[in-house]
Amino acid sequence: MKKSLFYLLCLAQLPLFAQTGANLTHYVKPIIGTQKMGHTYPGATVPFGMVQLSPETDTLPYEMNGKYNPDVYKYCAGYQYDDKTITGFSHTHFSGTGHSDLGDFLIMPTTGALQLNPGTATNPESGYRSTFSHQSEVAEPGYYKVKLDEYNILTELTASNRVGFHQYTFPKTDQAHIVLDLMAGIYNYENKNVWTFVRVENDTLITGYRQTNGWGRTRFVYFAMSFSKPFYRYGQKNYAHDVYRGFWGKFDQAHNFPEMAGKQVRAYFDFKTTEGEKIKIKFALSPVSTEGALQNLRTEIPHWDFEKVKADAQALWEKELEKINIKLAANDDMVSFYTAMYHAFLSPTTFMDVDGAYRGLDQNNHMAKGFTNYTTFSLWDTYRALHPLFNVIQPKRNADMVQSMLAHYDQSVHKMLPVWSHYANENWCMTGYHSVSVIADAVIKGNAPFDANHALEACVNTARYKLYDGLEYYMQMGYVPEDKNSSSVSKTLEYAYDDWCIAQMAKKLGRNDLYEEFIKRSANFKNVYDAGTGFMRPKMSDGKFRKDFDALTTINQGFIEGNAWNYSLYVPQYPKEMIALMGGESKFIPHLDSLFTMHLPDAFFAETEDISRDGIIGNYVHGNEPSHHVAYLYNWTKQPWKTQERVRMILKKMYHVGPDGLGGNDDCGQMSAWYIFTTLGFYPVCPGSDQYALGSPAMEQATLQLDGKTFTITAKDQSDKNVYVQKVVLNGHTLTQPFITHADIMNGGELTFYMGAKPAKKNYQ
Amino acid sequence: MKKSLFYLLCLAQLPLFAQTGANLTHYVKPIIGTQKMGHTYPGATVPFGMVQLSPETDTLPYEMNGKYNPDVYKYCAGYQYDDKTITGFSHTHFSGTGHSDLGDFLIMPTTGALQLNPGTATNPESGYRSTFSHQSEVAEPGYYKVKLDEYNILTELTASNRVGFHQYTFPKTDQAHIVLDLMAGIYNYENKNVWTFVRVENDTLITGYRQTNGWGRTRFVYFAMSFSKPFYRYGQKNYAHDVYRGFWGKFDQAHNFPEMAGKQVRAYFDFKTTEGEKIKIKFALSPVSTEGALQNLRTEIPHWDFEKVKADAQALWEKELEKINIKLAANDDMVSFYTAMYHAFLSPTTFMDVDGAYRGLDQNNHMAKGFTNYTTFSLWDTYRALHPLFNVIQPKRNADMVQSMLAHYDQSVHKMLPVWSHYANENWCMTGYHSVSVIADAVIKGNAPFDANHALEACVNTARYKLYDGLEYYMQMGYVPEDKNSSSVSKTLEYAYDDWCIAQMAKKLGRNDLYEEFIKRSANFKNVYDAGTGFMRPKMSDGKFRKDFDALTTINQGFIEGNAWNYSLYVPQYPKEMIALMGGESKFIPHLDSLFTMHLPDAFFAETEDISRDGIIGNYVHGNEPSHHVAYLYNWTKQPWKTQERVRMILKKMYHVGPDGLGGNDDCGQMSAWYIFTTLGFYPVCPGSDQYALGSPAMEQATLQLDGKTFTITAKDQSDKNVYVQKVVLNGHTLTQPFITHADIMNGGELTFYMGAKPAKKNYQ
Repeated sequence: MKKSLFYLLCLAQLPLFAQTGANLTHYVKPIIGTQKMGHTYPGATVPFGMVQLSPETDTLPYEMNGKYNPDVYKYCAGYQYDDKTITGFSHTHFSGTGHSDLGDFLIMPTTGALQLNPGTATNPESGYRSTFSHQSEVAEPGYYKVKLDEYNILTELTASNRVGFHQYTFPKTDQAHIVLDLMAGIYNYENKNVWTFVRVENDTLITGYRQTNGWGRTRFVYFAMSFSKPFYRYGQKNYAHDVYRGFWGKFDQAHNFPEMAGKQVRAYFDFKTTEGEKIKIKFALSPVSTEGALQNLRTEIPHWDFEKVKADAQALWEKELEKINIKLAANDDMVSFYTAMYHAFLSPTTFMDVDGAYRGLDQNNHMAKGFTNYTTFSLWDTYRALHPLFNVIQPKRNADMVQSMLAHYDQSVHKMLPVWSHYANENWCMTGYHSVSVIADAVIKGNAPFDANHALEACVNTARYKLYDGLEYYMQMGYVPEDKNSSSVSKTLEYAYDDWCIAQMAKKLGRNDLYEEFIKRSANFKNVYDAGTGFMRPKMSDGKFRKDFDALTTINQGFIEGNAWNYSLYVPQYPKEMIALMGGESKFIPHLDSLFTMHLPDAFFAETEDISRDGIIGNYVHGNEPSHHVAYLYNWTKQPWKTQERVRMILKKMYHVGPDGLGGNDDCGQMSAWYIFTTLGFYPVCPGSDQYALGSPAMEQATLQLDGKTFTITAKDQSDKNVYVQKVVLNGHTLTQPFITHADIMNGGELTFYMGAKPAKKNYQ
Repeated sequence: MKKSLFYLLCLAQLPLFAQTGANLTHYVKPIIGTQKMGHTYPGATVPFGMVQLSPETDTLPYEMNGKYNPDVYKYCAGYQYDDKTITGFSHTHFSGTGHSDLGDFLIMPTTGALQLNPGTATNPESGYRSTFSHQSEVAEPGYYKVKLDEYNILTELTASNRVGFHQYTFPKTDQAHIVLDLMAGIYNYENKNVWTFVRVENDTLITGYRQTNGWGRTRFVYFAMSFSKPFYRYGQKNYAHDVYRGFWGKFDQAHNFPEMAGKQVRAYFDFKTTEGEKIKIKFALSPVSTEGALQNLRTEIPHWDFEKVKADAQALWEKELEKINIKLAANDDMVSFYTAMYHAFLSPTTFMDVDGAYRGLDQNNHMAKGFTNYTTFSLWDTYRALHPLFNVIQPKRNADMVQSMLAHYDQSVHKMLPVWSHYANENWCMTGYHSVSVIADAVIKGNAPFDANHALEACVNTARYKLYDGLEYYMQMGYVPEDKNSSSVSKTLEYAYDDWCIAQMAKKLGRNDLYEEFIKRSANFKNVYDAGTGFMRPKMSDGKFRKDFDALTTINQGFIEGNAWNYSLYVPQYPKEMIALMGGESKFIPHLDSLFTMHLPDAFFAETEDISRDGIIGNYVHGNEPSHHVAYLYNWTKQPWKTQERVRMILKKMYHVGPDGLGGNDDCGQMSAWYIFTTLGFYPVCPGSDQYALGSPAMEQATLQLDGKTFTITAKDQSDKNVYVQKVVLNGHTLTQPFITHADIMNGGELTFYMGAKPAKKNYQ
């Protein structure tokens, strides 16, 4: 680099660092959640980036001997902390999901005799994988480093939005290889690869694509891969049974043949290296074309300066983390908080080329005009706290996410908003139509720089789509009958909540006709309440409750990812009405208390999926989302101090700074968003309203940066013991209710909690 | 339609008919070649159209019990005249090829109980197929009609360039079905469907695509399908073993579910019909996207007037057929001639949307700027006479075809011109790099409105691509050694000819360096001539001829689609040198005579592929292309009258007006182009030169329309007996050689042959 250019680049970066200086990035430990159930990944990415470049510690097949292989579930993010080997580094990963896919384009550097199969964890020498140890491992926002012990190769990874940047430091060898494994992937069954295609454009540039039928049914990802040094030889092996017949023996396709295609292709590129020589790879993705990937590559990283890409990535993280400047006494709490911020800013992910081109749900290419198009919408999880958090500290992005959902709607043959969408696919995972909550929340909170009437139309059409998941019955009968459609209680409750969101939006937009229709539907939760048992309970199409009923069991009881104990409390739109329905405060409070205190038999855990003792307190399940608002429900009784007590207990029990520091799947940031809100002292129990329930701030002070304004929250005398709120003052006025509004925050100002060691049973009155 | 609009449209059509009036279209019998080896199809298409909408008479699997099913070869065009049943009507077909693919999007109308499998030819009631008879069948250019006897449904088909138009006249029934079979196809093995996708946009519009790994390895075709009447119900069956797992029981995907995807999908659409009610379907294709298909549909046929589309299609044919106005005494000869014209104008096919968008060989989408992009280049066949014919009567299209080849080159990772390309695939079928012949022919003949220097670069890079088919050996050793690469003699001879073409082009463009390089290579034919046997003969890498050698056998003798007898005469660039090499006229003439007169043993036919007694005269094989110039070689001796005699014999023997009227595969028009040239009395023995060899005109008079000029050929006293040329006069000057030049034709004027019953052994002297 020319000296003058170097100074210029340094200067160009200075303002970012100068503005910030706080260096919050160093608190983030991406390794948190990589052990057990967190399902996070430790690799390199930028906020909401398209590329998630991260190590894989195994590439298990989806099926073993014709049966589902349950170990696959562990590898939703490709990495499990307890594993001893790394199979390579691939470019796409979900963060914290409970279902898997992705793991596209696995790269593995090796030395010695070429091996093209990954080998096994127990016998890593049998393949290209390598042992590694956590001692050599560094995981930071935008940067990952590890030593591949078997090959003595130092791996460093960083990324821009659409480009992964690999840097491999090799020993001296005449047998250095870079393996590009197109068969590898997460959630990888035999026919997952629909097609893959590779072109060796020249001796440093490769392009191609992968098309999969995985969780996403019809998914395409395109790439462009650039080497810092020419390879001197390359080749492929096609493992498919039905290798293409058409080449008529004209070519030796296995060696130095520049076009590869098929379902089971592994390619390699050979180098000779000197001691300590670095081979760098820039690997760009595109949802549209190899041409788009190449454009992304050349636009985002037009140089080979690894350190600059890393610095740029970390500057982007610093900027996002500084949206909240928090003071916490313990360093571990700083780590937990900023790691939660980090995890909250991984998804949804950017899904368009630098020029705005993206693949639509209709399988055509589109241009995003005036917004950034996002994908990876895990909405059953994220409508609860993540999108509300974005409305506070990422309002522009959240509005763009809504635009992305509306584009999905416009391209949907069902005329439905997304349920669980990614990479131009609707995966239909989980229940409800919670896009409407996200949209209503944005509209009600005034963060709606889009056509709100069109958005309302989208919500209404979604909520009226008869073919969807029991919705026709729900519209006819006011509930989903369990004999017609399973998980019927979850669906009924969630539809009723979503309908309330639509009603609020219709009201704000002056559509009283729609308000009437949907406010009526929002009361449907009552139709599945069984006063006899005191629980929400599956009802049959004959109008009677199902006879078999067990309020503890999670399997086949009318609920999904929850049991009647937890799910019966899911009426976020009408907590007071729900309490009244359940017999009033005098019955409700002890009922809620017992949720947190009861002891579950071991048999319970044997029968449920996705829940372990780590993820629960009593029978309160924090590892799954339906209970996320539950601890705040005391605010609607005369005992809000119990909310304060419970949320502090959950913070302590469910989050810590080890690799197993998450009590359940992070679910694309929802678990982390809960942590952030709760640490700050408030929570959006009912997105779609402008109300936040106050809890117990677990910090000393936090300042929220709100597009020019600031909102400062102070917790006086807060400590692990002083978890009870004695008094709350908002801009000089003492609050008489344990609630604040979105406007209270966004107008800027100061919120001060006065904390004490004992419940202030008379406050908020 | 409004009356005033109707008149307007009639007026708009009038000039076309008025200009023409000849009605040559009615001479064309698309049924010719549909029996046995012709491999033509009888369905509806327009000249060089993207859509070839034609009946399938069987959908055989590529493999039976794990072995190749040889009957598949019969169905290269989907239709065999002797079959008794029709399985449906699909939208893409090769014309006359010896390898198969396509058959995309099979539509079948049925009544009664729904059947979604095709059933068998012997038991048609077991599936949706129907019996039919040739009595009810009408096949015209741009129009096809047949009665489906089993269902009493009258089928009529017509087409525009990119849209197939179906018209089905139903009986009265409450059970009318339109089946859309995405599993059906030609060259159809189990994993041919890589992916298919269908969206039911509304109750009259379907979109989707099909992606196949067939002969073309990575092929995509998109569609939009519009019904004239709403269906009241629809559904699908997915026959794949690995049906997508992701829908979680949320939907009934089999019925009225608007998104279908997978590898083995059959869909149906249900109607109720009154007696004689017509259900019409417009079915548009696109190489790019469903959006492109929809745009093609709406642009090309914005109405539902079947008769108008048919009239437009036939007007397009009339316009093309009138490029040559011929007078022939016998109606059958008129039929043969204009059917040959029709077959010559089917391929290459249009390969871009109405806006110019097309999928490139690099798998990216491109825009054709300033030219029409074509595909279906069967170049080993068509460089011989079809493209030379286009340089005379389709110069604009031929130049666009060259532009399409150059675009292919620009997008090729090999930096090679097409060998056998279609639908953004290089199929690598057959030998040589005959694109260079097509390009040189256009350049030498002055039909090169493109960057000729870029074209020369493309030719040179193609001819120097070491990885290709023995080319590295050829460049090093001057021949392809049989022990290194099979069909080595064919390759050596064809490379040498192609190299001569490059040399001619280099010379014209002033690139003497390249001229020297390639003129030297053009003499390489000598390296495989064995003076001992008098034949071209496979040579080994040690420089010796292979010991085993049989000049009659076609299998494994160093030749492809030919034996040494036929292929040894393949030196079109140097006929005189070849004759000298073979011992001079005194030896050559009797040798050539014996080719036409020798009797082959029956064992010969048992051992060869692609040749039957129908396709040969003596040992002269007309059904395969390498001999197409051979009958004209007498022109380079003192006995050109033998050319005249032989070509008339070939015309009579190899072409007639029955369904079996072609003596071999029409090969995308090459067989027909030979017929046209030969009937007119001249033939391009060496494309890339401007010379035509004269033969014996088999007509009375023909006028060629040449962009404003006309060239009239008259054959005085011509008859079946008077096949010998007594004298030839070009614009008043008697010719002294049996040759004319391209300029002689294109300048316009008159060529008069004086014919007689006896050889004029002294003419041309």
